[in-house]
Amino acid sequence: MSNSSYVERTGGPIHKRIPVDDTFERLVCDECGFINYINPKIVVGSVCTWEDKFLLCKRSIEPRKGYWTIPAGYMEERETSIEGAMREAQEEACAEIAIDSLLGVYNIARISQVQLIYRAKLVTPNIAAGPESLEVGLFTWDEIPWDELAFPSVHWALGHFREVEGQTDFAARPEGAMGL
Amino acid sequence: MSNSSYVERTGGPIHKRIPVDDTFERLVCDECGFINYINPKIVVGSVCTWEDKFLLCKRSIEPRKGYWTIPAGYMEERETSIEGAMREAQEEACAEIAIDSLLGVYNIARISQVQLIYRAKLVTPNIAAGPESLEVGLFTWDEIPWDELAFPSVHWALGHFREVEGQTDFAARPEGAMGL
Repeated sequence: MSNSSYVERTGGPIHKRIPVDDTFERLVCDECGFINYINPKIVVGSVCTWEDKFLLCKRSIEPRKGYWTIPAGYMEERETSIEGAMREAQEEACAEIAIDSLLGVYNIARISQVQLIYRAKLVTPNIAAGPESLEVGLFTWDEIPWDELAFPSVHWALGHFREVEGQTDFAARPEGAMGL
Repeated sequence: MSNSSYVERTGGPIHKRIPVDDTFERLVCDECGFINYINPKIVVGSVCTWEDKFLLCKRSIEPRKGYWTIPAGYMEERETSIEGAMREAQEEACAEIAIDSLLGVYNIARISQVQLIYRAKLVTPNIAAGPESLEVGLFTWDEIPWDELAFPSVHWALGHFREVEGQTDFAARPEGAMGL
């Protein structure tokens, strides 16, 4: 029953082994053969601007509580990456955004994460802290709290935004992708 | 123990409910509180060419056994998306490839899948069927078995390849992404 859902499985002990016709170790139930595939996770987010200002959120949760980030988070099932990025902006900054292009594809293989970061404009300047933010703000480039950014990927995304400013047809910038 | 691995969990019954501080239903263990997050899956693949010919693989497995596809498959943990696309070309067509840019980002929200499809060149024309292929071949554009392609995304990828032929700095083409 390797295609059944986890809810339906028998609940027997799970151990790591290589299933028949596979080449990787998986988490397999000894009783029913259920395979719990663990896959890389997708983070979706956006660099959002209002005129010459950038939207940042001060994190209210770990990791990196108290540091500033762009709105981003784990993509959920049955949404597109763009819907996910819009949802994260809404959840973290009560922000309504219009996405215009894919800015970056960041691979963080160490933690099996792929980030899809978009470029977006705020539809209105009305923002407010959601449950995962202590506060939110709009910062000019020079006002950005560079020493208090939460993650390297926030630096990458802001840098890539500047690199392609004014361009409409550009390749999404990679990070962690073997020199591409 | 919501951060523990599945191997370590107590094995109690799993039910769907919304955990504290969350907004989505998750699979939660009644006994130990373990949360089994189910995330969208990433497919990585590539349109690979040798001179004016395209690499295609006839699938030996379901779904769409007997139909032709580009080398692509689920991204594994602790690899980058490019490493994954190279691995799939090796596994399905024994092909060594050099990837040059991101061709498409395809969202198939219905099945919670995001496909990252790259443009690549075969390093040598030596190809052979791997375990998941009945045969592999190099086809000119006009020779491509258009009526026997396995998935809509194979059509998208080949079409996008033609759209950007000769270009080096282009936006990855989206599909299923709300008009972007």
